Amino acid sequence: MTTISRLNDVDIDAVATLVDTCKEDATKAATTWRAEVHWKGGFRSEGRIREFDPVPSDEPVALGGTDTAPNPVEQLLAALGNCLAVGVAANATARNITLRSLSIEVEGDLDLSTFLGLAPGHAGFQSITARIRVDSDAGPEEISDLVQYVSNTSPVGHTLAREIPVEVVPA
Amino acid sequence: MTTISRLNDVDIDAVATLVDTCKEDATKAATTWRAEVHWKGGFRSEGRIREFDPVPSDEPVALGGTDTAPNPVEQLLAALGNCLAVGVAANATARNITLRSLSIEVEGDLDLSTFLGLAPGHAGFQSITARIRVDSDAGPEEISDLVQYVSNTSPVGHTLAREIPVEVVPA
Repeated sequence: MTTISRLNDVDIDAVATLVDTCKEDATKAATTWRAEVHWKGGFRSEGRIREFDPVPSDEPVALGGTDTAPNPVEQLLAALGNCLAVGVAANATARNITLRSLSIEVEGDLDLSTFLGLAPGHAGFQSITARIRVDSDAGPEEISDLVQYVSNTSPVGHTLAREIPVEVVPA
Repeated sequence: MTTISRLNDVDIDAVATLVDTCKEDATKAATTWRAEVHWKGGFRSEGRIREFDPVPSDEPVALGGTDTAPNPVEQLLAALGNCLAVGVAANATARNITLRSLSIEVEGDLDLSTFLGLAPGHAGFQSITARIRVDSDAGPEEISDLVQYVSNTSPVGHTLAREIPVEVVPA
């Protein structure tokens, strides 16, 4: 049940239950996630996830799009920021730290040469930086330790930082 | 200018102009992208990109969230699908292939043990698969070649498939 007084409004009991379930049976930690994308003409498309409203995608005009929505590489950066926000909220709560506010700036450099077919090689981000701004009742060392821990356990962060087998095939 | 009769509604002239610009001056291909994430309490947050409406994020109830929006790992899969859609639209147009429809199913397996603090190691996706369904005037071999090319030049695809330096620091 939601209680207004709950620390950071995080349902830490639900997380604890999940932890216990996965401790008893490690196979319970194995999850599969899905998204479906539908092309809408030009460089416009939309992501459909479970029963949620479709999320639009487009490219800036300079890249041949109509600039009606964030583009895929911006969506990737937002996914990282959202993942880090969950990590900070969960682990601050577990450490009994009250969060007053939390925001994350994510930035990445990308050379378009490979995407544009001008050079073989790496089409992705060269590097990504996330700066986590926390206003809380914890000191700078506690926050630094929290940020380090969250970075070391972030599903999106690790997916970006490590080599993942990505298979792209015709259906 | 938008013309209705344009192949796949792709502004291939804009892409060609960008290619020429980057050919003349390789530094023009160097781009920087940003997203800002604001925490909204619990596991809810929103991604803010340029002037677009904020995109909400949450976690399923079983993971301690309130299930009001796709979660960050689902957003990551959608970003990949949207990136591949741009790649297919751009390169089909460059090859004079008419697309009637295009959809992409993206799926990935993820073990929650590391995120939950039960095991050190890899918190990210173990593997990701994208299945591209194209209805077009091209034959299966042309489509297979197109998909292969798009996979080899995808900014999000390469960011996931390769090791990227990801720095997460307190602001």
